[in-house]
Amino acid sequence: MSLLPRRTPLTSALLSRFRHPAQLIVGGFAAAITLGTVALMLPAATTSGDSAGLLRALLTATSAVCVTGLVTVNVDPHWSGFGEVVILALIQAGGLGIMTLATLLAVLVSGRLGLRARLLAQAETKTLHGTDVRRVIRNIVLFSLVSEAVLALVLGLRFALGYGEPPGRAAYLGIFHSISSFNNAGFALWSDGMMRFVADPWVSLPVAFAVILGGLGFPVVFELARAWRRPRTWSVLTRITVGMSVVLLAGGTLLFTAVEWDNPRTLGPLSDQVKIMAGFFTAVMPRSGGLNVIDISQMRPESWLATDILMFIGGGSAGTAGGIKVTTFGLLAFVMWAELRGEDRVNVGHRRVAGPVQRQALTIALLGVGLVAAGTFLLMFITPHSLDRVLFEVISAFATVGLTTGITPELPAAGQVLIIILMFVGRVGPLTIFSALALRERTRRYELPEERPIVG
Amino acid sequence: MSLLPRRTPLTSALLSRFRHPAQLIVGGFAAAITLGTVALMLPAATTSGDSAGLLRALLTATSAVCVTGLVTVNVDPHWSGFGEVVILALIQAGGLGIMTLATLLAVLVSGRLGLRARLLAQAETKTLHGTDVRRVIRNIVLFSLVSEAVLALVLGLRFALGYGEPPGRAAYLGIFHSISSFNNAGFALWSDGMMRFVADPWVSLPVAFAVILGGLGFPVVFELARAWRRPRTWSVLTRITVGMSVVLLAGGTLLFTAVEWDNPRTLGPLSDQVKIMAGFFTAVMPRSGGLNVIDISQMRPESWLATDILMFIGGGSAGTAGGIKVTTFGLLAFVMWAELRGEDRVNVGHRRVAGPVQRQALTIALLGVGLVAAGTFLLMFITPHSLDRVLFEVISAFATVGLTTGITPELPAAGQVLIIILMFVGRVGPLTIFSALALRERTRRYELPEERPIVG
Ligand SMILES: [K+]
Ligand SMILES: [K+]
Repeated sequence: MSLLPRRTPLTSALLSRFRHPAQLIVGGFAAAITLGTVALMLPAATTSGDSAGLLRALLTATSAVCVTGLVTVNVDPHWSGFGEVVILALIQAGGLGIMTLATLLAVLVSGRLGLRARLLAQAETKTLHGTDVRRVIRNIVLFSLVSEAVLALVLGLRFALGYGEPPGRAAYLGIFHSISSFNNAGFALWSDGMMRFVADPWVSLPVAFAVILGGLGFPVVFELARAWRRPRTWSVLTRITVGMSVVLLAGGTLLFTAVEWDNPRTLGPLSDQVKIMAGFFTAVMPRSGGLNVIDISQMRPESWLATDILMFIGGGSAGTAGGIKVTTFGLLAFVMWAELRGEDRVNVGHRRVAGPVQRQALTIALLGVGLVAAGTFLLMFITPHSLDRVLFEVISAFATVGLTTGITPELPAAGQVLIIILMFVGRVGPLTIFSALALRERTRRYELPEERPIVG
Repeated sequence: MSLLPRRTPLTSALLSRFRHPAQLIVGGFAAAITLGTVALMLPAATTSGDSAGLLRALLTATSAVCVTGLVTVNVDPHWSGFGEVVILALIQAGGLGIMTLATLLAVLVSGRLGLRARLLAQAETKTLHGTDVRRVIRNIVLFSLVSEAVLALVLGLRFALGYGEPPGRAAYLGIFHSISSFNNAGFALWSDGMMRFVADPWVSLPVAFAVILGGLGFPVVFELARAWRRPRTWSVLTRITVGMSVVLLAGGTLLFTAVEWDNPRTLGPLSDQVKIMAGFFTAVMPRSGGLNVIDISQMRPESWLATDILMFIGGGSAGTAGGIKVTTFGLLAFVMWAELRGEDRVNVGHRRVAGPVQRQALTIALLGVGLVAAGTFLLMFITPHSLDRVLFEVISAFATVGLTTGITPELPAAGQVLIIILMFVGRVGPLTIFSALALRERTRRYELPEERPIVG
């Protein structure tokens, strides 16, 4: 049951260069954040011409690289054109970095993951060459840029034709919000997020679609592109990702629409059709787009709780989404179901899920719960806010969502540092843990006697 | 890896009488609650002489049988002497029922559990006879009654000598609070709980000790009585229960004392020594004694969150405590630790923990999380309360703790029904699930191809 990858020339080369691939990821993200912080501290980055200061620049850069979207100042009035471009570059770098690193890591440990074959549409036994890795990266970059270009075109045209923006400004707004949407970054140039577009399907639906697409993860998108007509051939990864996404999006839409239907501060004043559309948008964004067409701070507390749960679950693996991922959540649900039915094996579709993967899912979920609990406790300790708002903000940071009930801008410095740490660990952690888990294995030379203590 | 018990004459007889042992447990608790409800609806049960009504009687009877302690009216002014005796009998029946049924279930499925041998101090291979079961039950009843008698004596003497209560009243108060404490029932005859004894170690410390003792669970107490000098021989069950209990009690004491130290409405006005003692008492009660020496409704929200976590974890298996149990929590922590270290096996002390037990622990924890999340969402939907208070009340009901931030008495009928359901499922559920898991197993005749989807 070893998780050690088959050593290929490439994996050997990579493993010899870095003592641990996790170092590459943590180092890469830290470097991007440092660069971004320095750039955003330049006086040229703000409209006022004064330096934003270390904490504000660090939080904004972390939020951009980790594609979260939590900010202490609104982007548009505070940052200059140069500042905005820096933020956009950080988002694009962060989003592409996540997709490529996560996908490559999966390839790297794929000797047993069974992913490489599907990913590269090659025979199971073929070893990895440098060309294959280049091809994976090229495909990811191509997929990202083409998706972003199409969305930018749609949005740009809409801003120009529907809202009378001059062509240059419309193009810029289209590109900014396209990159922000596809990379699940949660940044918007309007102080109220996307609220002005609540009734405009030409903006809100393409944005929601881009968030879903970017958040599915490259391996799933690639498999869907290749075999969307043949669901029976899908891998466990794709089955769970698509299935859980449909369930969570449909359930979330129903729930938000029902709970907020007559809330005068959110859906109340809207027409029935727009209510459902806004409910759908609100159900999409926790996984982990982070944009909003209704005022999150005015939602009912039970909607916050539902959002908390959706944010914690997050989106697809090896995509731009955060959270523990729908695969982790779905797998745990399957394990529970098998246990309740008294089945020895955990089967998804016509595949058996390997035992070690079940334990990985458990570990990732528990680490997430522990981190969120600790973060919530600490933030409650240093602020006067209630559990509703603090839990929401902590999960939003951990799951790199960016939705807010409004407390992040008011946080004291210690609270802002906590949010920065949560964003970084939430973004890098699952990857790092995954790699640390998958590439390290010690085996005892002897077996200890087995025992089954009571639980529950 | 079958969990089916070895069929012995006794297990065969039991299994042939009930299609499923879970039916016995659910039916037994439901019958006790029904009887209690009828008794408490009698006019003689209230001081006013009017019937308490169905909902109030049902909630109180459920709370007593499930040893929870959440109530909509204070016991002393509302219920008559007869009503109090009914409540006390329900508590004793519920507590003894839980201890014996849980222990017997463990024995029943112990062919592979390795528990019977330790429990009965017999050889591993010896089969069960009727006499062994009678001996287990006798030991449990003896242990309960002796513990309760000793505590009743201590408390009764203190009430008589320290507070000038007349002998009869002191004895009654001693017996009532002894039975309530040992069975982790959370009922007190004072409207402010045990707050008047915050500075009295002769009351608060024996009560805390009884709560811990009753909540450890009979198998652990029995093993400790037999081998407390030889920790190296302890079973995994006892190791985890004792270890986690020490960690949670010490951590909880530290945390509550620190957070509430200068809260003028809780620990603030007390002397340093009393602060620490009250912090200890407050750390003991979430697992799941349910009594209080400080005003829970005035604690800081971060203390509520910490209490939530401690309540959810609960106490020991096969005892009077509720929650998912420290064994479940501890086992999951060990599984996570093994995964992070890259160990293939999960070892506790010098024993390897069986794979199916890990999956049981995961299932119990996930079911608990799901139930609490659903209950919290529903209660938030039907009341105007914040997440802080609703989550606290829901976990308190689910984990049969009985601590309250004060909202239970104000709940609408639908909310009270929800609390009743949570208490019942929380009390019976883990047992039922355990038995359902352990006594039912289907095996596929063929193996499906294995796959390892990405998680996280
Ligand atoms: K985001
Ligand atoms: K209790």
